[in-house]
Amino acid sequence: MPAFAKRMSQVRRSFIREILKVTADPSIISFAGGLPKPDLFPTGPIAAAAASVLAESGPAALQYSVTEGEPGLRQWIAERYKTTRGMDVDPANVLITNGSQQSLDLLGKVFLDPGDVVAVELPGYIGAIQAFSVFEPTFAGVPLGPEGPDIDRLVEVLTQQQAKMFYAVPNFQNPSGLTYSLAARRAVSEAMRVSDAVFVEDDPYGELRFMGDPLPPVSAFMTQDRFMLGTFSKIAAPGLRLGWVVADPATLPKLVTAKQASDLHCSTLVQRILMRYLADNDLDAHIATIKAAYGAQRDLMVARIKAEFPEGVTCTEPEGGMFLWVTLPAGCSAFALFDLCIKEKVAFVPGEPFFVDGSGQNAMRLNFSNAEPERIIEGISRMGRAIAKLLEKSACAVGA
Amino acid sequence: MPAFAKRMSQVRRSFIREILKVTADPSIISFAGGLPKPDLFPTGPIAAAAASVLAESGPAALQYSVTEGEPGLRQWIAERYKTTRGMDVDPANVLITNGSQQSLDLLGKVFLDPGDVVAVELPGYIGAIQAFSVFEPTFAGVPLGPEGPDIDRLVEVLTQQQAKMFYAVPNFQNPSGLTYSLAARRAVSEAMRVSDAVFVEDDPYGELRFMGDPLPPVSAFMTQDRFMLGTFSKIAAPGLRLGWVVADPATLPKLVTAKQASDLHCSTLVQRILMRYLADNDLDAHIATIKAAYGAQRDLMVARIKAEFPEGVTCTEPEGGMFLWVTLPAGCSAFALFDLCIKEKVAFVPGEPFFVDGSGQNAMRLNFSNAEPERIIEGISRMGRAIAKLLEKSACAVGA
Repeated sequence: MPAFAKRMSQVRRSFIREILKVTADPSIISFAGGLPKPDLFPTGPIAAAAASVLAESGPAALQYSVTEGEPGLRQWIAERYKTTRGMDVDPANVLITNGSQQSLDLLGKVFLDPGDVVAVELPGYIGAIQAFSVFEPTFAGVPLGPEGPDIDRLVEVLTQQQAKMFYAVPNFQNPSGLTYSLAARRAVSEAMRVSDAVFVEDDPYGELRFMGDPLPPVSAFMTQDRFMLGTFSKIAAPGLRLGWVVADPATLPKLVTAKQASDLHCSTLVQRILMRYLADNDLDAHIATIKAAYGAQRDLMVARIKAEFPEGVTCTEPEGGMFLWVTLPAGCSAFALFDLCIKEKVAFVPGEPFFVDGSGQNAMRLNFSNAEPERIIEGISRMGRAIAKLLEKSACAVGA
Repeated sequence: MPAFAKRMSQVRRSFIREILKVTADPSIISFAGGLPKPDLFPTGPIAAAAASVLAESGPAALQYSVTEGEPGLRQWIAERYKTTRGMDVDPANVLITNGSQQSLDLLGKVFLDPGDVVAVELPGYIGAIQAFSVFEPTFAGVPLGPEGPDIDRLVEVLTQQQAKMFYAVPNFQNPSGLTYSLAARRAVSEAMRVSDAVFVEDDPYGELRFMGDPLPPVSAFMTQDRFMLGTFSKIAAPGLRLGWVVADPATLPKLVTAKQASDLHCSTLVQRILMRYLADNDLDAHIATIKAAYGAQRDLMVARIKAEFPEGVTCTEPEGGMFLWVTLPAGCSAFALFDLCIKEKVAFVPGEPFFVDGSGQNAMRLNFSNAEPERIIEGISRMGRAIAKLLEKSACAVGA
């Protein structure tokens, strides 16, 4: 057996997927996953769409197709940017992918040589870190605060370190739940404008806003070198594995070539089922149902955290999405808490894997989209007990 | 905009996909594509399978799933190796992919550093050349003859050039239609055994044998460092985009990590639809129908070529698969013929793009799986006229 490629030494297996194996035990209340709530999937309408597609144009839906994706689906996505964000998007610049993860892989393939600097948020989305790692970049962390990224640090990374790319999740970020303010969006776009880097704006949760006013994408303030990633995983169903990238026109042909080399094209069948579902159903009504459920679960989780977690422990209060972020007092270890919590039969994801600079030891991610209210109440109560134990016996106690 | 990654300068857009755009004109009889015949797809049974899956376990079929693939589908694939090839395959070593193209991408990711030598057949499968090109290898061609690859050259490439991988399609190869003899299979396995390289055995057409006895895979003579690629594209439907790789156990975890980084997992929905289709239907009966149709089309195309093409023009007579290979007299240009043929409203794929050493100017690939008999008769007649014109006016005339 020959040696594996050097790139593979950079890529870790997804820590979250490893945790999910631990939490397969049904007696464990898990806030670790990142799953949408399956009883909210539009199962019946998708079944009807599948039946229609296969009855009316089955052989075409089962044949090879074009790499760029089904034209009707690309058109739908372009129109959606107009109706939900007031943006003009040319369907010719939309590439259909196997979910956002493949959009990240293709962008890495097209842009990243070994050693290139990629700016990512601190904390940052772990799937993006994993996807880019394959291409052996150097990561530069940009700390994320309540209003958005540290702009001075971003500018430093873009100019002094000549980063080739900034990857960001401005809405209800995974893992933190934080959202960029309007001012931060403008500032990021300005920092990008004066740099030579590309901006990769991942927005899996943007349509899942429970409160507050929608904000324009950072990309809306840019005219070039921007890529907008989206997915049907959170607004329809992740088992379809369909997402997209709206590409800078100069780069679209390279992305298409990379997609062709990677897997020819996305499943014709699922693309057509999805198109039919979108044509025959009211997606906005469906999204309203999801938002009502997730919003109520978010409210409950925030309320129970405030009631149950010891003083000195803080959490973000996301305006949308699927995750919130808990910070223990400085010096506390979320990994140590994880072990205590497994004994209490409750799980979360420790924060450190989300930080490319190795920080974040005292933070953690909690998912609220895939938990029944009674399990949120019980799970947060169990976590509260475990945190109290951790604070009692460790040097990180409040006021220490 | 920053520079694209170096790797992208190595990757050409698929030449075949570009040709397919030229041949979109319905008045052109095209033997250029590589499409299965869509009216043979099991459309009704797949519709029934989709209905059952969505009715009985819809939410699970629409949820995220494991990277390795659906356990039942991996099990089915392992059992198929037992029944059709007498091989013991552990389902734990099967990884589900978005068709063989993704298996190639993942193997490239896991094994190939820039400059590594990859041995490929002359002519070789163009999709594999494209997939591997992303990882910036050096290709070494191994000429393919009627019995299999040139073993002396293979040994030279494996030992003196220290190739890291040999990629081969031993059954009814794309593009040549050639099949390795039993002796060649043993000789290849022996050459691989004494080398440090991995063997990648792609077998998309193995189940589509029209005549002659099935032969064991080359991998059946090997105990390690071998990867067997398969796909449901030719025996079920390509629009599903499902294939697999049976991996060497030491490499499987790396492939899973690479798959996770690439797109998390294959569509849960299409995997479950396919599983249900396979459970509820007689695949062997379905394959028998495909073989009868393709076999008759192959017989007709070979017969018409012998009747219509000028003396000195030869073709392979494949025992299965979807393609045959036509060789013009030395000195003739298949690209020049292509231009003449487009005027006659008939198309094929010129051979040169299949040769990593730039040879093959006088050869071409013809597809027989996706053409009605009357279009085969008419198309070969048109090609015969065009070849006659080429031979008349060029220096490559027979006996020249």
